[in-house]
Amino acid sequence: KEVFKPMRQKEIKVVKSVMSSPPITISPEASIEEAAKILIENEIDHLPVVNEKGELIGIVTSWDIARAVARGKVGKVEDIMTRKVITTTMEEPIEIAARKMEQHNISALPVVDKDNRVVGVVSSEDLSKLLAR
Amino acid sequence: KEVFKPMRQKEIKVVKSVMSSPPITISPEASIEEAAKILIENEIDHLPVVNEKGELIGIVTSWDIARAVARGKVGKVEDIMTRKVITTTMEEPIEIAARKMEQHNISALPVVDKDNRVVGVVSSEDLSKLLAR
Ligand SMILES: C[S@@+](CC[C@H](N)C(=O)[O-])C[C@H]1O[C@@H](n2cnc3c(N)ncnc32)[C@H](O)[C@@H]1O
Repeated sequence: KEVFKPMRQKEIKVVKSVMSSPPITISPEASIEEAAKILIENEIDHLPVVNEKGELIGIVTSWDIARAVARGKVGKVEDIMTRKVITTTMEEPIEIAARKMEQHNISALPVVDKDNRVVGVVSSEDLSKLLAR
Repeated sequence: KEVFKPMRQKEIKVVKSVMSSPPITISPEASIEEAAKILIENEIDHLPVVNEKGELIGIVTSWDIARAVARGKVGKVEDIMTRKVITTTMEEPIEIAARKMEQHNISALPVVDKDNRVVGVVSSEDLSKLLAR
């Protein structure tokens, strides 16, 4: 008599399970100093930039602020933000998110919904926690 | 007849195998602008601060530079660096390094030798690459 057991499936971990949410975001009109303050108050390195509708239009990081310092630049978030943002979604496997970070040499991805609204942020810190013991 | 096979050991990955080396470091006497330039030129976020002997005496990150901006502060690396540095060693298992980052909410660790000289840096980006596919 043959017995069929269900195959033990390897659980696929998705972005939703490790992301930080709700996201802390900023407006493109904010000053560089305001962006710096928000990063420091929240002990984070990445700020998605959103319009009035909450749609993602850029990202500004502590590295971008260091770049502004290196260039002696003052101004608004929109002057220093990166506009072509690499993103992920809640249901994307974390292996894919990790690969995007590796390929683009970045350390976090805004998590967007189908309307391009930011619902979270996943960082290499969130991912490396999975290796901790 | 009994056959004894060696148990298949799970390979223990150590820091050495994933760290960035040689490390890019800075002197405590350097200006904040110089630190920012080195971070940008090398596309990194963390700079171990070393004395003339190459011994670790602090760490300065793009987050510290953002904090200097938030506070309107100008000055030297030694004015903004963190002096109590959490470190790792070449032979430490990456699970332990990941746990240190998680516990201290930081995203990189200088790798030091037995004489407290910096031999590399391991970041959460280096670790999260291990999850990429
Ligand atoms: C709380 S973390 C958050 C920002 C960012 N993830 C980072 O690692 O810098 C920021 C502070 O941690 C400090 N820091 C970063 N790596 C460190 C380390 N290995 N040991 C001690 N302090 C560290 C920085 O100097 C900075 O003041």
